Amino acid sequence: MNLDKLQTWLQDNDLDVAYISNPITIAYFTGYTMEPHERIFALLAFKDAEPFVFTPALNVEEAKASEWDGDVYGYLDSENPWALIADHIRQRTNEYSKWAIEKSDLSVAHYQFMHEQFADADFSKDVSGFIEHIRLYKTPAEIEKLKGAGAEADFAFQIGFNAIKTGVTERSIAGQIDYQLKLQKGVMHQSFETIVQAGANAANPHLGPTMNTVQPNQLILFDLGTMHEGYASDSSRTVAYGEPTDKQREIYEVNREAQQAAIDAAKPGITASELDAVARDIITKAGYGEYFIHRLGHGIGKNVHEYPSIVGGNDLVLEEGMCFSIEPGIYIPGFAGVRIEDCGVVTKNGFETFTHTDKALKIIPLSD
Amino acid sequence: MNLDKLQTWLQDNDLDVAYISNPITIAYFTGYTMEPHERIFALLAFKDAEPFVFTPALNVEEAKASEWDGDVYGYLDSENPWALIADHIRQRTNEYSKWAIEKSDLSVAHYQFMHEQFADADFSKDVSGFIEHIRLYKTPAEIEKLKGAGAEADFAFQIGFNAIKTGVTERSIAGQIDYQLKLQKGVMHQSFETIVQAGANAANPHLGPTMNTVQPNQLILFDLGTMHEGYASDSSRTVAYGEPTDKQREIYEVNREAQQAAIDAAKPGITASELDAVARDIITKAGYGEYFIHRLGHGIGKNVHEYPSIVGGNDLVLEEGMCFSIEPGIYIPGFAGVRIEDCGVVTKNGFETFTHTDKALKIIPLSD
Repeated sequence: MNLDKLQTWLQDNDLDVAYISNPITIAYFTGYTMEPHERIFALLAFKDAEPFVFTPALNVEEAKASEWDGDVYGYLDSENPWALIADHIRQRTNEYSKWAIEKSDLSVAHYQFMHEQFADADFSKDVSGFIEHIRLYKTPAEIEKLKGAGAEADFAFQIGFNAIKTGVTERSIAGQIDYQLKLQKGVMHQSFETIVQAGANAANPHLGPTMNTVQPNQLILFDLGTMHEGYASDSSRTVAYGEPTDKQREIYEVNREAQQAAIDAAKPGITASELDAVARDIITKAGYGEYFIHRLGHGIGKNVHEYPSIVGGNDLVLEEGMCFSIEPGIYIPGFAGVRIEDCGVVTKNGFETFTHTDKALKIIPLSD
Repeated sequence: MNLDKLQTWLQDNDLDVAYISNPITIAYFTGYTMEPHERIFALLAFKDAEPFVFTPALNVEEAKASEWDGDVYGYLDSENPWALIADHIRQRTNEYSKWAIEKSDLSVAHYQFMHEQFADADFSKDVSGFIEHIRLYKTPAEIEKLKGAGAEADFAFQIGFNAIKTGVTERSIAGQIDYQLKLQKGVMHQSFETIVQAGANAANPHLGPTMNTVQPNQLILFDLGTMHEGYASDSSRTVAYGEPTDKQREIYEVNREAQQAAIDAAKPGITASELDAVARDIITKAGYGEYFIHRLGHGIGKNVHEYPSIVGGNDLVLEEGMCFSIEPGIYIPGFAGVRIEDCGVVTKNGFETFTHTDKALKIIPLSD
């Protein structure tokens, strides 16, 4: 269990207390997901005592009914949450002089409030890097959730492809995707705003769906994802509306070859940097290197972007259980953009994708 | 201009530098909206020098094309952003020994990185409270945007009312609202997830739209909002599907009376606590006080929840330009929930709402 790893890390580093403040990290360790907004939500873990969750009183019953089976303590808005947390800690253990905190998440205000309760303690140690590290390796249960999210993305592509016709806006197609995900799949949260880009709009990877309309003989790029039991999907496909030109077909096929080569190369032992180069070399040799303007991929899990980063210069050796996207793109300003993206997991001998929508160039017949 | 107020505050408090880290606060001061995720985005303001914006290099052109007409500096992923910020500061001024930071937002990691660049400086002052204070008072331009967001909420209610029929799920109605907002109004971001609750589900104010179906003779509660030019709307209406029972009608009319009384009482000079009591007293005298389980309202602006909090015990005197919700509710477990909510602005003599959907009890005819 992941919390056991945290306790071992505390012991190995001769630390007494870990104060976990990021709600995603708390969900990762406890199975209880909650967004506290301006209120206090914390997980306290110890070298030599049982961990506990601390929430607003409103959420105590919900937390107890969740997967988390440890203690849950609450506070009322009229109480001082920091004093209460300190009391619970002192009742649990006599060792609280050496702390680890999530420096990349914890606000200075909350840090200072907690430190005031333990004025003599050392709060200098950062647990963020350790958490990033253990989150790199997904369990079978996590991988099942990522596959569930991938299946929803596959469904969404079909809705999007069927919505293409002359004169429909990008935004309308995106809206139909979101609506049918909610209606047919019960998807309440998407992992990011659905992207639909027609023609030259797809040359800008940052552009959201506009009120521009689809026209014959454009390439149309989709990038979308859902949240499924707390885990994200993220996938891209590019299709042709009407018969593609030779140039459109060429950039599609070059990009497809690069994506497939990277999927085939992904396995334990290759580095992130090497994997990025597999796809980039193919695109560069075809003459489009200057149009592949981003890294090959990013990690995925409870966050749609997490570690590992599949980027030139990252010498991380990929290992079984690591999950990330493989998403080369070619973006030619004023002309078109192509991106093909699957997320997947490094297996014992290769890489298994979470999405399965066909990648042969799909040609949507013209219609009004 | 709001940045002038920040500079004056620095001068009044004998401080040299304000380091603004919250993207919403930066948007408030500069008109430039951006979500940096794991990258660095900052506004630096000074007692005696011109402010500047610091962004990832990818965003520099976008920032320069925005409303912000001051300097913009960028950094590449391969550069140390903290050293670059420090260089820009030292080129601008010789005074950087006394800093103010946003303690409620700034992470410990970013705080420490910045402090390392100015190891002898004093970073003890918190600017969060001052920012909350000036954001209490909306300008005419901000109020126009809040009204624009309110008009979108009014449109959304009509979509929702028209979608009610026997057997439709709450989630389908919510999905239709979101889709039509995107399609007909071009609303790309809502201020929170659309809430549709039928019958007893509405007794739990935290419950999202479920796959439960609408049935005859239920009360149906809607709570929704949009983002319009960076400003939020948030409004609730409750309607009857088919002829309401006497009890349903009674809780609706008590709540409506309480909401109207609070709107009529909102004006400069009343305190937040007194305003809460105006609505609460009416509901309590009608015998439903125990079912009004939350505060009367919350501030609204760039965030859907901000200051002031309209709650018992808050002795803040309301003033012209303050914007907040007035949203009493009656929630009877196992039976029904009613909430009526409008956001608005305190005017010279009263309170002007941003939403205008009729509040006489609307009875939707039964249909399949």
